[in-house]
Amino acid sequence: MTAMNVEPLPIALDAMGGDSGASPNVEGAVAAARVGVRVLLVGDPVRLHAELGKHAAADLPLEVVPAVDVIGMDEHASDVRSRTEASINVATRLVKDGKACAVVSMGHSGATMASALLTLGRLKGVDRPAILAHVPTQKGFAALLDVGANADVKPQYLAQWARLASVYLGVVEGRDKPSVGLLSIGEEPHKGSQLVLEAHALLKEASGLNFYGNVEGKDILKGTTDIVVTDGFTGNVVLKLAEGEAKVIFGWVRDALTSSATAKIGALLVRRGLRSVADKLDPSTYGAQPLLGVRGLAFIGHGSADAKAVKNALLRAARARDADLLGRLSDALG
Amino acid sequence: MTAMNVEPLPIALDAMGGDSGASPNVEGAVAAARVGVRVLLVGDPVRLHAELGKHAAADLPLEVVPAVDVIGMDEHASDVRSRTEASINVATRLVKDGKACAVVSMGHSGATMASALLTLGRLKGVDRPAILAHVPTQKGFAALLDVGANADVKPQYLAQWARLASVYLGVVEGRDKPSVGLLSIGEEPHKGSQLVLEAHALLKEASGLNFYGNVEGKDILKGTTDIVVTDGFTGNVVLKLAEGEAKVIFGWVRDALTSSATAKIGALLVRRGLRSVADKLDPSTYGAQPLLGVRGLAFIGHGSADAKAVKNALLRAARARDADLLGRLSDALG
Repeated sequence: MTAMNVEPLPIALDAMGGDSGASPNVEGAVAAARVGVRVLLVGDPVRLHAELGKHAAADLPLEVVPAVDVIGMDEHASDVRSRTEASINVATRLVKDGKACAVVSMGHSGATMASALLTLGRLKGVDRPAILAHVPTQKGFAALLDVGANADVKPQYLAQWARLASVYLGVVEGRDKPSVGLLSIGEEPHKGSQLVLEAHALLKEASGLNFYGNVEGKDILKGTTDIVVTDGFTGNVVLKLAEGEAKVIFGWVRDALTSSATAKIGALLVRRGLRSVADKLDPSTYGAQPLLGVRGLAFIGHGSADAKAVKNALLRAARARDADLLGRLSDALG
Repeated sequence: MTAMNVEPLPIALDAMGGDSGASPNVEGAVAAARVGVRVLLVGDPVRLHAELGKHAAADLPLEVVPAVDVIGMDEHASDVRSRTEASINVATRLVKDGKACAVVSMGHSGATMASALLTLGRLKGVDRPAILAHVPTQKGFAALLDVGANADVKPQYLAQWARLASVYLGVVEGRDKPSVGLLSIGEEPHKGSQLVLEAHALLKEASGLNFYGNVEGKDILKGTTDIVVTDGFTGNVVLKLAEGEAKVIFGWVRDALTSSATAKIGALLVRRGLRSVADKLDPSTYGAQPLLGVRGLAFIGHGSADAKAVKNALLRAARARDADLLGRLSDALG
């Protein structure tokens, strides 16, 4: 859409969102701006300028857009309807009004999703938008969706999400003809819930998709397929289990490494190696998760996101903009 | 039922079941018999006597019950209907005919389930039997059900399973008033699928249950509740993901420990500690998973079960028999 000689649109960051508020958002935005990404920081101007003052940010492509309200992590997602001046609503409106190309928020996931959906609407051919998560695997990462936007789904949603994710991985992550697995309880096409049986039939018939067939829970981290589609209930349980299990196992490993004087000495020697495993499992590597299917680019991060996650989310959003992800999604679904 | 001075009934082991056939089954049965558990080894007599010949088993309380057929791991569960002389069918008939108190199989899970259900029937008050898995947690283990018997469920099934699991944990594992969590995508009662919302209401009203409320994927390994109830689709995905992730993370840790000369020396010093973590995650500790809700005791194990798993499954079955699990389940549901 944008002519090549026009400066690309900035990214709107809900700079008040997340467990730690403005601090990691501003620090991450400064880091992204240093590598050339323009960012609109949406939120309380006093607070945001105070945070900016901590960094040498005067010459960076950063701008503060005032928003007087913020939807807290413990409030209701439905509040986005009435609280029009909340930072997330101001940010999504910047996208709708053509002043920003994407919205990024580490705040209330439900509120971000609701605000994006209400303000931007759906892409043609999409019944329900879905959140795509990047899950670390033996082969890099897999794209898992939906991870929470839709607890009750219909078979055609899964087929639409497979298409959205295929375009996303191709355009933003450079994976050519990504393979699509349908999460089930057996590899055989006749195994699964009624939903999965019907979705399997739709996916098998879909043109232009690289459908692998059913995959099981154990396949996700093996990286059997590039994409794993499932309903938002199962996907959310899977994502939280996968992250939770990594933490629990690492806690056990840490305890084991301090369980004796001998182990403590050994721990010093294996520290670097184990650090690399922990890095692989660190969600901040991927920054934020795209909400696919809305008429605009939207990325939703962890409430616990640090500055690195915010920076990576902004870089990913810029990559999606530069690759015209939205146009490519429209073409694929329309 | 059994008078105190009568010898307790033996346990019927589908001795041909599992990826490795008779060998680990016989070895595990010999180990269980050495600590006083009577076992009926069901299967090909020639094969079983040959395996028994490898052990000093002559004086042990083991008996071979001939079965000429076996349902292979790749065959259809529905074969149990026609292949009446398959080892699993002979084993479940021993329970029905009062010649054994429980059936244990490391063979085809679906076939074992179908055979138990067809031969033994359901307990009064149970719509659908469920498989309960033991999942390692920070506090020991949690009981997760259903893990695969029922992909499509109704809210009342979840309430019945919560009751079955509560009795099982109390009677067989000695946990008093075990807490019950309902797997969902948020702790708040209003979050979740339609199924979960309705099940939540039923569980909240149920008398005699220690209902905690909703739990999330991350809570399972934390051990937030003793029991986690969910549909058989989500439960099966969760179980396979949890086991698969542990393997993947351990693979990464192993690679990290051999990534440099320094790390290799450190690995020798931390080996004992890491071994203890691997043991915690080893499914063979729990042996096999009870199929709850059928009119008889049935335990279903991993196809990859080793002799230790077979032994532990037989010991758990004996404990269930001695504690009159079946009578206690009937009382709780009837």
